[in-house]
Amino acid sequence: MLITPPYLLFIGNATDPLSIKMARSAADWSPEKCLGEYRLDGCTVTTGCPVISIEAAAREGAKSFVLGFANSGGHLSPEWLPTIITALDAGMDIVSGLHDKLTDFPELVSQAEKVGKRLIDIRHPTARFKTATGGKRAGKRLLAVGTDCSVGKMYTALALTKALNQRDVKATFRATGQSGILVAGNGVAIDCVISDFISGAAEGLSPANDSDHWDVIEGQGSLSHPAFAGVSLGLLHGSQPDALVVCHALGRSHMRGLPHYPQPSIAHTIDLNLTHARLTNPDAKVVGIAVNTSSVSEQEALAVCQRLAEEFQLPCADPIRHGVKAIVDNLL
Amino acid sequence: MLITPPYLLFIGNATDPLSIKMARSAADWSPEKCLGEYRLDGCTVTTGCPVISIEAAAREGAKSFVLGFANSGGHLSPEWLPTIITALDAGMDIVSGLHDKLTDFPELVSQAEKVGKRLIDIRHPTARFKTATGGKRAGKRLLAVGTDCSVGKMYTALALTKALNQRDVKATFRATGQSGILVAGNGVAIDCVISDFISGAAEGLSPANDSDHWDVIEGQGSLSHPAFAGVSLGLLHGSQPDALVVCHALGRSHMRGLPHYPQPSIAHTIDLNLTHARLTNPDAKVVGIAVNTSSVSEQEALAVCQRLAEEFQLPCADPIRHGVKAIVDNLL
Repeated sequence: MLITPPYLLFIGNATDPLSIKMARSAADWSPEKCLGEYRLDGCTVTTGCPVISIEAAAREGAKSFVLGFANSGGHLSPEWLPTIITALDAGMDIVSGLHDKLTDFPELVSQAEKVGKRLIDIRHPTARFKTATGGKRAGKRLLAVGTDCSVGKMYTALALTKALNQRDVKATFRATGQSGILVAGNGVAIDCVISDFISGAAEGLSPANDSDHWDVIEGQGSLSHPAFAGVSLGLLHGSQPDALVVCHALGRSHMRGLPHYPQPSIAHTIDLNLTHARLTNPDAKVVGIAVNTSSVSEQEALAVCQRLAEEFQLPCADPIRHGVKAIVDNLL
Repeated sequence: MLITPPYLLFIGNATDPLSIKMARSAADWSPEKCLGEYRLDGCTVTTGCPVISIEAAAREGAKSFVLGFANSGGHLSPEWLPTIITALDAGMDIVSGLHDKLTDFPELVSQAEKVGKRLIDIRHPTARFKTATGGKRAGKRLLAVGTDCSVGKMYTALALTKALNQRDVKATFRATGQSGILVAGNGVAIDCVISDFISGAAEGLSPANDSDHWDVIEGQGSLSHPAFAGVSLGLLHGSQPDALVVCHALGRSHMRGLPHYPQPSIAHTIDLNLTHARLTNPDAKVVGIAVNTSSVSEQEALAVCQRLAEEFQLPCADPIRHGVKAIVDNLL
């Protein structure tokens, strides 16, 4: 699954900034891949990319038309089909991170065949995965894990990769969700893999590499999430991380989507993750804590990070507000 | 996914008793569903069911033709297609637990349509599962968990269900693997579910029930297995077990299929399973230890079970050799 840049980011008539997370992730982290955004009347949000039409984007060489928005349920509304067909006709592959598959729409399949373009459903892996072997492989790996879903694991992994590369350390971001896949141009939507192959897919995603190369792997879910912990555990075992960064979001009263489940503590999250990580990598350790402090003031953010750093004797920072220098220092 | 009895168990020309595990499981635990076995020249093993031809079985009312054997890889050899078509023509659904899907063979699909019979790939769930909610539901649940794969979790769960029913306790076996599904006539091959839905599928498999009803759920894998722990964890969270039975096989030097991974201790297995089980059911407890003692003498088996019972202050028995009375006593 390889997505060809440059992308035209289609954000439809979105009005909720959260609904265009996928498009914004690409614009934030791979601006060089994003030619522009295509928006419709009524749209009140933006990726920050230049606004451009399908025709103009095609002339400028756009290769992939990205459905960069999502509604709850991940459905593909038939109202978008004419737009998608226009993009196919303009010579672009279509990329979707929705639950509904592009390939389930016969009119899209036939048009894509006709014009020789691809329909890429990045949430639906088409690769055949292998069962994990648990065998040690060369190279180093870092996995971002979390107290909960949507606490900033992808942003943390991307920030770490960028910081490592800026220091001339060989490092590759490994995407495990649809936004990350769009940023990287490839990856595996790990929560969409058949469960027998979670760990095997994770092994394949971060294969043997140079001994001084870091794979920085986007985490998924949380070992304390009643719905998704299996995904998190399989990803942890298959990634065989040498280093873990624990990600946490301030200001949450409960697990995402589950009001009756309290958040786990950072200490418990460290314990659980190390216990399990050491099954496939006895040397696994936590190298830092990344806190999403967007719900509090700048001053409070610094105070919280300082308190956590002292409590756990680990570098602690908000990757967006403070950067990840301290964590990278500790890693290296 | 509902399999209609009676079954005709097809064991081909198998020579390895382990390769007909699926057929033998049905013969052992649901003999009333098994009309007979159909075997070919060269076959040296048996389910113990009467040998019968396809034609005779059809006359006696066989409703499902079960591919009761497996080769490594789970491939469906084209050499069996004529036999399968004969069974379709004789009026039977076809049931397969192989990785290769019956529905991937166009000649089977067209013949099944023609005669109005079903192709049932029990390893490939067709249901649409929901994401787990973690919400508490009525009824009681027991989950068989293990130190490793293939240690006797299915046999233990079946033995417990039978013993509970014999004491007039309402109890239902819930199958999570292909052999169990064949025994029960329904269930979900949990390791074949998309990983986002492992826990949700487990919730759906053991739905709300009478407050004095026990779902006895077949476990899968092990929290200490580098390839399959994610499946085990998702199943554990979704099952919300009130009671766990820890299953263990004597005489193994390493995890199944992974010579470089030692077996976890029973104590560690209890700890890990209780830690995670209590996320979705704070009252979860271990009610017994089931030991597969087939690798040792009768005398040694008794000695081991007695030693473990004392060490863990829990009833401990080999369900096949000693029955599960002590565990059921403790459960009730």
